Amino acid sequence: MPVPTSSADNHRAHPPRYPQDDAENRLLENWQEAGHNRWAFSHMEEVTAHARIPAAPVPAQATLRLGALVEEVPDLVVRLEESYTDSLVILQRGELVAEYYRAGAGEYQPHLLMSVSKSLCALVAGALEFEKKLEIDAPVVYYVPELADSVYGEATVRQVLDMLVTVDYDETYVDPNSEVQRHDRSAGWRPQQPGDPSNTSDFLTSLRGAGNYGQRFQYCSASTDVLAWVIERASTMRYAEALGVYLWQKLGAERDATITVDNVGFGFANGGISCTARDLAKVGQVLLSGGQAPGGRVVSEAWVAEVFAGGNPEAMTGEGFTEQFPRGSYTRQWWCTGTERGIISGIGIHGQNLWIDPSQELVIVKLSSWPEPDTAHWHQLQTQLLMELTEAAARLS
Amino acid sequence: MPVPTSSADNHRAHPPRYPQDDAENRLLENWQEAGHNRWAFSHMEEVTAHARIPAAPVPAQATLRLGALVEEVPDLVVRLEESYTDSLVILQRGELVAEYYRAGAGEYQPHLLMSVSKSLCALVAGALEFEKKLEIDAPVVYYVPELADSVYGEATVRQVLDMLVTVDYDETYVDPNSEVQRHDRSAGWRPQQPGDPSNTSDFLTSLRGAGNYGQRFQYCSASTDVLAWVIERASTMRYAEALGVYLWQKLGAERDATITVDNVGFGFANGGISCTARDLAKVGQVLLSGGQAPGGRVVSEAWVAEVFAGGNPEAMTGEGFTEQFPRGSYTRQWWCTGTERGIISGIGIHGQNLWIDPSQELVIVKLSSWPEPDTAHWHQLQTQLLMELTEAAARLS
Repeated sequence: MPVPTSSADNHRAHPPRYPQDDAENRLLENWQEAGHNRWAFSHMEEVTAHARIPAAPVPAQATLRLGALVEEVPDLVVRLEESYTDSLVILQRGELVAEYYRAGAGEYQPHLLMSVSKSLCALVAGALEFEKKLEIDAPVVYYVPELADSVYGEATVRQVLDMLVTVDYDETYVDPNSEVQRHDRSAGWRPQQPGDPSNTSDFLTSLRGAGNYGQRFQYCSASTDVLAWVIERASTMRYAEALGVYLWQKLGAERDATITVDNVGFGFANGGISCTARDLAKVGQVLLSGGQAPGGRVVSEAWVAEVFAGGNPEAMTGEGFTEQFPRGSYTRQWWCTGTERGIISGIGIHGQNLWIDPSQELVIVKLSSWPEPDTAHWHQLQTQLLMELTEAAARLS
Repeated sequence: MPVPTSSADNHRAHPPRYPQDDAENRLLENWQEAGHNRWAFSHMEEVTAHARIPAAPVPAQATLRLGALVEEVPDLVVRLEESYTDSLVILQRGELVAEYYRAGAGEYQPHLLMSVSKSLCALVAGALEFEKKLEIDAPVVYYVPELADSVYGEATVRQVLDMLVTVDYDETYVDPNSEVQRHDRSAGWRPQQPGDPSNTSDFLTSLRGAGNYGQRFQYCSASTDVLAWVIERASTMRYAEALGVYLWQKLGAERDATITVDNVGFGFANGGISCTARDLAKVGQVLLSGGQAPGGRVVSEAWVAEVFAGGNPEAMTGEGFTEQFPRGSYTRQWWCTGTERGIISGIGIHGQNLWIDPSQELVIVKLSSWPEPDTAHWHQLQTQLLMELTEAAARLS
């Protein structure tokens, strides 16, 4: 396996956005100039904020296509509203069987996935393994030597995939002194403060910790961004491009997806993808199809089997999850419930779920905007509703 | 006609982005919080920069569907390449007869329209006039009292539409001391400098000048942004929303368009729209159809007739244009060639054209990335090619 070019050789951490990119983060200064404008005129979304001008009218009322589920699940519509549902999509055996969109949205409205983005990142890693471009038992530093002095300096790609690395990283979303907020500030999700790392990779290289490699699960958003950095080196593509080539373009997606980028154009892999609920459901269907998508295979059958087999319950932490699912585990950036149906889920704060039930080839996408990021109250409401929808779908099919 | 609510009453210049918008420009600070996150999770493109993850593969080669034009126009492909063409679309009698996309782009790649955006702004004004929501002979300050002390304080909407206002505004794109660059910096198109107005409307209210209302054409990008501000007040919508409701959703557009926004979410009407070449061609077709679009009427037949009739050649300045078209004029944000065919064009720097020939129901869209914004050399090359394509299309039909 050839050693990837390190940034020490090419003086930049990430692949360039475009061929004449000068790597000095001056896009807002020079995008209109020769050498830069050819790319920039077709990529204004990377230059500055913008508003969408929708081709289809924005519905003033909620869209309800819930069929018999309305009778089968008590108070379904009220519970969707009370759990701040923006969109709900249910696929059964690959067919769209139910949809709900709040007023002011519609089937083509994109929605931020938060940490469901993590599960998509792992699929790209799996795709690169399938194409023999990534060795998941290799050390992280084989791909990203810049991380040598960080806590990731002794981790393998597999340990990062399974979040079996102990990092000094406080994932308390509402605490301004937490690492997760510092991470946000480095990535352009919050205003930068003096002393903050200037971008995501500078933040990642600064992380330290006890390691405990392979021993103990720690849910850590930084670990996913490390994985995305590995993906860039293994694919020799920007992370956004790799997402397109190895996942989105195989799905039969109806719409482009997007990912927020930091000031050097690195995608916020742990939480920054936006897409439609329908397109996200197609990602779930790939797992139910053994890794196959309409446009070709995404990951190996073995990869999918290992996801559904679940992670190591001995390593498991994350009480919020194990209180609900006592046999719960985490592997390859998926939460595995350990229930009889074998359900797995991508989960994001504020109520994002990509819920996959292999026992009846069912996918439920629920994208929401809970008022709080991550409390037991909201998780319990959401999980209860997803479970009832799952059982109702089984009865109706 | 009821007097629109002035910002003096509601303490904000522009309609809120969303119902709980606190008007203090803290979106990057508070978008994840309750009251803000419902809107923000579906509108991340307004919060921070992002990358697209295309649903369709990005073609490595140029796409050529030029048919018999290749024989009919000497060196056509070379001339498209040498004039930095990113996309070319030709509609004849409403049918797509030719397309070209450079390598690395494709039919769904959006492209910045630069000042072709102006012509679209005027169509929204015309749509509001058709719906009796806008009186174009009213003073600008009837809609935007904030402009009372500016050079626009004594102008009518019609004079702004026709750019018959003399403004202290230097439109020299490559001069950092010009007003056009200060305008860019206020709107988020360039890094702000100390002393710059903080956003577009603060910049517009600062403008002074001799006025010469109705007498003399001055091509001035600020005048279009004034028109967009009038549109917001007449429609009680954000400009981006008005563009959607009154134009984009009537076109049968294949894709959403976008518009860059400043730090309070005001669209950069004079140059900030991006869309596909195919969708832009549909805008041209609306004029050829007397103001009618697949989704309903956009502007009155009279409005379209007045555009094709051209502006006042006596008032005309703009030597770059009149050297090429001695009977050239400007009206309602369109350049009118005064040629026998009666061709009009929306024109943007760096090679953007929406070229409309009513004599043979022809639309040509050419979107480019010239290395310089606005020199005679590039304009002459581009116009010559558009003229030859026009005559070739006439011979072939």
